[in-house]
Amino acid sequence: MTIGKNFISTQDWSKNELDELLQSASDIKKSPYNNSLKNKNLVMLFFNPSLRTRVSFEVAMNQLGGSAVSLNSGQDSWKLEHVEGAVMDHSTTEHIKDAARVLSRYADAIAIRCFPSMNSWEEDRKDLVMGSFAKYATVPVINMESSMHHPCQALADIMTVKEHAGNLKGKKLVLAWSNHPRQLPTAVPNSIALIASRFGMDTVIAHPKDYELDSDVMHAVEENCRANGSTFKVVNKLDDGLKGADFVYAKSWGSAKYYGRPDSEKSVRAKLRGWKITRQNMLLTKKARFMHCLPIRRNVEADDEVIDSSDSLVYEQAENRLHVQKALLNLLIGGGS
Amino acid sequence: MTIGKNFISTQDWSKNELDELLQSASDIKKSPYNNSLKNKNLVMLFFNPSLRTRVSFEVAMNQLGGSAVSLNSGQDSWKLEHVEGAVMDHSTTEHIKDAARVLSRYADAIAIRCFPSMNSWEEDRKDLVMGSFAKYATVPVINMESSMHHPCQALADIMTVKEHAGNLKGKKLVLAWSNHPRQLPTAVPNSIALIASRFGMDTVIAHPKDYELDSDVMHAVEENCRANGSTFKVVNKLDDGLKGADFVYAKSWGSAKYYGRPDSEKSVRAKLRGWKITRQNMLLTKKARFMHCLPIRRNVEADDEVIDSSDSLVYEQAENRLHVQKALLNLLIGGGS
Amino acid sequence: MTIGKNFISTQDWSKNELDELLQSASDIKKSPYNNSLKNKNLVMLFFNPSLRTRVSFEVAMNQLGGSAVSLNSGQDSWKLEHVEGAVMDHSTTEHIKDAARVLSRYADAIAIRCFPSMNSWEEDRKDLVMGSFAKYATVPVINMESSMHHPCQALADIMTVKEHAGNLKGKKLVLAWSNHPRQLPTAVPNSIALIASRFGMDTVIAHPKDYELDSDVMHAVEENCRANGSTFKVVNKLDDGLKGADFVYAKSWGSAKYYGRPDSEKSVRAKLRGWKITRQNMLLTKKARFMHCLPIRRNVEADDEVIDSSDSLVYEQAENRLHVQKALLNLLIGGGS
Repeated sequence: MTIGKNFISTQDWSKNELDELLQSASDIKKSPYNNSLKNKNLVMLFFNPSLRTRVSFEVAMNQLGGSAVSLNSGQDSWKLEHVEGAVMDHSTTEHIKDAARVLSRYADAIAIRCFPSMNSWEEDRKDLVMGSFAKYATVPVINMESSMHHPCQALADIMTVKEHAGNLKGKKLVLAWSNHPRQLPTAVPNSIALIASRFGMDTVIAHPKDYELDSDVMHAVEENCRANGSTFKVVNKLDDGLKGADFVYAKSWGSAKYYGRPDSEKSVRAKLRGWKITRQNMLLTKKARFMHCLPIRRNVEADDEVIDSSDSLVYEQAENRLHVQKALLNLLIGGGS
Repeated sequence: MTIGKNFISTQDWSKNELDELLQSASDIKKSPYNNSLKNKNLVMLFFNPSLRTRVSFEVAMNQLGGSAVSLNSGQDSWKLEHVEGAVMDHSTTEHIKDAARVLSRYADAIAIRCFPSMNSWEEDRKDLVMGSFAKYATVPVINMESSMHHPCQALADIMTVKEHAGNLKGKKLVLAWSNHPRQLPTAVPNSIALIASRFGMDTVIAHPKDYELDSDVMHAVEENCRANGSTFKVVNKLDDGLKGADFVYAKSWGSAKYYGRPDSEKSVRAKLRGWKITRQNMLLTKKARFMHCLPIRRNVEADDEVIDSSDSLVYEQAENRLHVQKALLNLLIGGGS
Repeated sequence: MTIGKNFISTQDWSKNELDELLQSASDIKKSPYNNSLKNKNLVMLFFNPSLRTRVSFEVAMNQLGGSAVSLNSGQDSWKLEHVEGAVMDHSTTEHIKDAARVLSRYADAIAIRCFPSMNSWEEDRKDLVMGSFAKYATVPVINMESSMHHPCQALADIMTVKEHAGNLKGKKLVLAWSNHPRQLPTAVPNSIALIASRFGMDTVIAHPKDYELDSDVMHAVEENCRANGSTFKVVNKLDDGLKGADFVYAKSWGSAKYYGRPDSEKSVRAKLRGWKITRQNMLLTKKARFMHCLPIRRNVEADDEVIDSSDSLVYEQAENRLHVQKALLNLLIGGGS
């Protein structure tokens, strides 16, 4: 019944649809090969680099009997315009309207990766490139990470959590801000907070002052928790967040206050080196599992001994990308369901 | 019977061969999937970016049971030399002779995109890179746009025209020069003029003074029209061209007079902003269909309301790329015919 | 029995294993298509450009029913760290440990191309990137050319030699240093010296003073020859090397003395223009076959009339890349053997 829908944010899908998708992912994990996407083509358009996403989507298509075409925008292809009605006498070469409609004639689905510009948060939070593709494409559009969301990562994460925790009621996930040499986007923290709260987990976000996430997203997380009867808390001390946690999800992101001004943020970050997951501070948790979406800055975001411990789920999260994306592709463009 | 031939320009193929190819494309459009290219590999070498061409060729191969490999020259691969007998002690790393012969050992066909340098028209019009591949490869070479020709685009265009006009006798196609912020190559205008005249259409080219197309190509267009008993005209006013047109094909290209000197051309172009297709000037036509090969500079080459109108064929042209290329691949490297 | 092994250098494999692999390659050359790699995925990670290697591996996977995913590191993907325990607060974005383990969850084998930095030979000869992937990956790792080795090229070369010489006992192969405008790596000369000596050929290396190859590799070549009862010689005059040769393998490489200082080497090279294979100096040989791994600088490393003569094996070497790689993939990840 979800055939033909886009997949831009997990919030757009009903809980039933997400459950169905995760069940399908579990089934596929046990039986990974079939021909359900025979003659189907996925076009992937990357405005930014990718390792896990690109490989896992290509392999997903191949193992289901279909094919994927990967394009790097601005390198393999052209620079795209997204402003409606633009007089295109400057640097952009093609309008997303045209690219989306043309690709819809060739492909059964279009997957897009488009990071924020990191110049203006007001601009970036509108997620215009992703939104334009979704608006103009006549086939399903899959978000491979936009300014605001990384729903495929969220699916893989919640699948991994479920594999280890079973019933999520009363289980506590802490999204722990971590240090990093660069200002990173907020799509992953947004997405993990949304999915954990959606699936009824007690959700905690620990971040330093001035590292608030987007208020609309926070309201949605709060609403998710309220609907599930679970708790939501934001704390400004890492230790407060870690106490009693079942899952510690480390992730760095840039401060909205210094958005687009990485140099100004540097001195702030220099004082935040304690925001790192260590064996020591993991002792505060309830023998929590460690999570991260990768790539991770080792010994900056978390210590080697945490990432490489038997409580680390990072490679399972990565592997589950493959399974959830196969399930997603089957639902969106498979022969029917 | 055409198996093993190159496809560099539609002029190299007989009218019968082109008809057969278009018939096959129509059949494939109705029945798009089969296994006719099982075990076949197409290598595509891009010296320039591509969206439509790359995706449509990859999808074409996949939907016929074969596979495509895409390479970006000078990025994925090396810089290539085309001068016969060159002493290669400078920047080029491999001779096309060797690249073509080696790729012929791996692939069943080689497709090349190589735009003009836009430095010297005398050099560019020789189409040496494409010619060298055709000379040295021992498998069919397909032109994915060279300095002089874009025959796959021409095939898709004439297929689209035929789908809308049926009998082309007495139908008038105007190739209308349009404004654009950059000097563009002439491969597409050459190819559309050649194919329209070849298929018996009354062919008009409207362009400003100093924007003449290559004289050899113009002679060939003239000869095509003479052979078909159709008319050929070049006019220097857009309105003169549009009058009575059945198909308006907007396309920008650089002036031969200012070739390789885009800065000198700028002031000339500033006075040519009227060379744009608008709803207003479309009223001069015989309820013409609007065509463009894409990417198009919206509201510079043509207005949104023209491109997005129900008389616009731009997405059908793009889609037909897929079908004609499948037919072409079947003819060139399919199991037999 | 070799299933699951890495393929980093031919020296790591037993002579029996290499013989089996070459026999399989010959069989596949006669019967190139099957489904032995159905559902298998190869991920190829390129830190450097490639033509032959990329195309031949992709085609190999396709013709055996599998699929390949190609990534350009630092362009499609991220910059990778290889230092164990590194505090990653600088430019590298992901540790090879993580990349290798994640890719092992998606792919059945990982193929890596990583040229030397050409800054420090002491660093480069450790082959750390290739070694790190081999250490951390949980699926087979294939060397597509590292600082030290290019074993797939070596396999294709020895297959070609065997096709022309039959029994290699008493056959003389000379690896002839040749001039070139740039400092090239030594992976190919290392690999051809290792494989020729391993297969019992009388092995000669002709190079100018100061162009010695790595001493560990030279000891291994010497040991290979001793074990086979064949001869090994290094000479500093091209003519001395060519005398009585059955196979002349031209190849340029950088001088260890000037490693990382190409400008200092330039004046040295200017005096070495005589190190070129010409029709004239081929007369010194025993009607030798000419070999080169390509790409070749024509009329600098060897004259056109040598490369294009009927005694040249360069395209057969290139073609055999496809066949040996198929055999290799079958052994490493095929359904069993």
